[in-house]
Amino acid sequence: MKKVKKKIKAAILIIGNEVLSGRTQDLNVSFISNWLNINCGISVEEVRIIPDIEKKIIFNILDLSKKFKYVFTTGGIGPTHDDITSLSVSKAFKVKYGFNKEAYAILEKYYGKKNFNEGRKKMAKIPAGSSLIYNPSSAAPGFKIKNILCLPGVPSILQSMMNNLKKYLIKGKVVSEKNISIHTVESNIALELETIQNKYIKKNVNIGSYPFFRLGKVGVSIVLRSDDKFALVNCHNDIKNMISLKKIKIFK
Amino acid sequence: MKKVKKKIKAAILIIGNEVLSGRTQDLNVSFISNWLNINCGISVEEVRIIPDIEKKIIFNILDLSKKFKYVFTTGGIGPTHDDITSLSVSKAFKVKYGFNKEAYAILEKYYGKKNFNEGRKKMAKIPAGSSLIYNPSSAAPGFKIKNILCLPGVPSILQSMMNNLKKYLIKGKVVSEKNISIHTVESNIALELETIQNKYIKKNVNIGSYPFFRLGKVGVSIVLRSDDKFALVNCHNDIKNMISLKKIKIFK
Repeated sequence: MKKVKKKIKAAILIIGNEVLSGRTQDLNVSFISNWLNINCGISVEEVRIIPDIEKKIIFNILDLSKKFKYVFTTGGIGPTHDDITSLSVSKAFKVKYGFNKEAYAILEKYYGKKNFNEGRKKMAKIPAGSSLIYNPSSAAPGFKIKNILCLPGVPSILQSMMNNLKKYLIKGKVVSEKNISIHTVESNIALELETIQNKYIKKNVNIGSYPFFRLGKVGVSIVLRSDDKFALVNCHNDIKNMISLKKIKIFK
Repeated sequence: MKKVKKKIKAAILIIGNEVLSGRTQDLNVSFISNWLNINCGISVEEVRIIPDIEKKIIFNILDLSKKFKYVFTTGGIGPTHDDITSLSVSKAFKVKYGFNKEAYAILEKYYGKKNFNEGRKKMAKIPAGSSLIYNPSSAAPGFKIKNILCLPGVPSILQSMMNNLKKYLIKGKVVSEKNISIHTVESNIALELETIQNKYIKKNVNIGSYPFFRLGKVGVSIVLRSDDKFALVNCHNDIKNMISLKKIKIFK
């Protein structure tokens, strides 16, 4: 995996009516985003969820492809009529949509010649010029074309494939995180946090503040993220001092 | 609530580094989308998740505002430095960002004059010309300006506010749903489903097919959605007949 010292930015494109309609709870954004940061130093900067409509897929593939170093898509690479990601990506990049020999061989072996029906064969149709992303769970591969990496929508299958796409990525600077949860409400620490954020903004430390309710108690999670570990530790200490001065208790 | 007979399309804009980084699992998309369809006949057609960066918020507010009848934002309306939704929306529409008298009075009453500090006062700063969306959980209101409706990011608070924004919406045609889960794999029914989808496409029935793994068994959920209840029932019957002919068992 080639490494660079700068931040690498990516987008996720979730393709699927079932997520948009609210029927299916997406679980892929948080998994992919965490995985990319920890394993590859790649930061997800935008997510879009769109329906299974060809012209929308084409528009968003081209738009995000221009704006980000990598675009990860999920969904729409299965055997049924509503799986139109491969065809749409082919149209977006004006390349042939047809059988990929390697994918065909993998699927034929997996299902056996006798059971390799039309639906199953469809999963071997991939934009010309793509590289495959192997699937250890259910054989049907994902693929990479230009800076687009296409993955399935089923979380367990997607998760099993992530290690197989590492080879296509350049590694950037990993963002480290520290967090502290305290017994207070946000409005009690807003001014102090802003002062600390202003102090560390040039050192690229981002401070997030998130209210929560846990076991009937209110609290705030303060989350610090930075690719500069030294600045992160200093900022964390400043926040701990502020909390101590204000006599706020830490959530255990 | 005024009613129209056509489909009304909306977008959701999730504003928050914590969702993008994968630290926080978004729960608002599925809730808002389901709620809007059931209660208002409004269909969510696109979702974007973006960071707490002013120029990105402004760009997406203006872009989605043009493309959809309504845009629902979540996050960034609290008291801390990283809550910049109200300011960004003001800048997007070039209106004054300042105290809303009604919001100020609500918050002053809620916290008491003595405890109404700067952080809390910030939550009364709302784009000029907005209407308030009342908050029965924690007082700080959301707001509506033009076709943008701004809500908080904490799911329980957001959910408590939804009934208070109904008055700002026009009701469209509710999309009905039927679904059936069966003991098979997608590739075994792909061709048959496509034939049925082609038959009902002009009647505006959308058929989705979603593989799942449950209690160690694989299955497929077939989901039918349409604003035409009669066509929905006919399509559902065709699918049940197909399943019966192919001797596939239904998941109980």
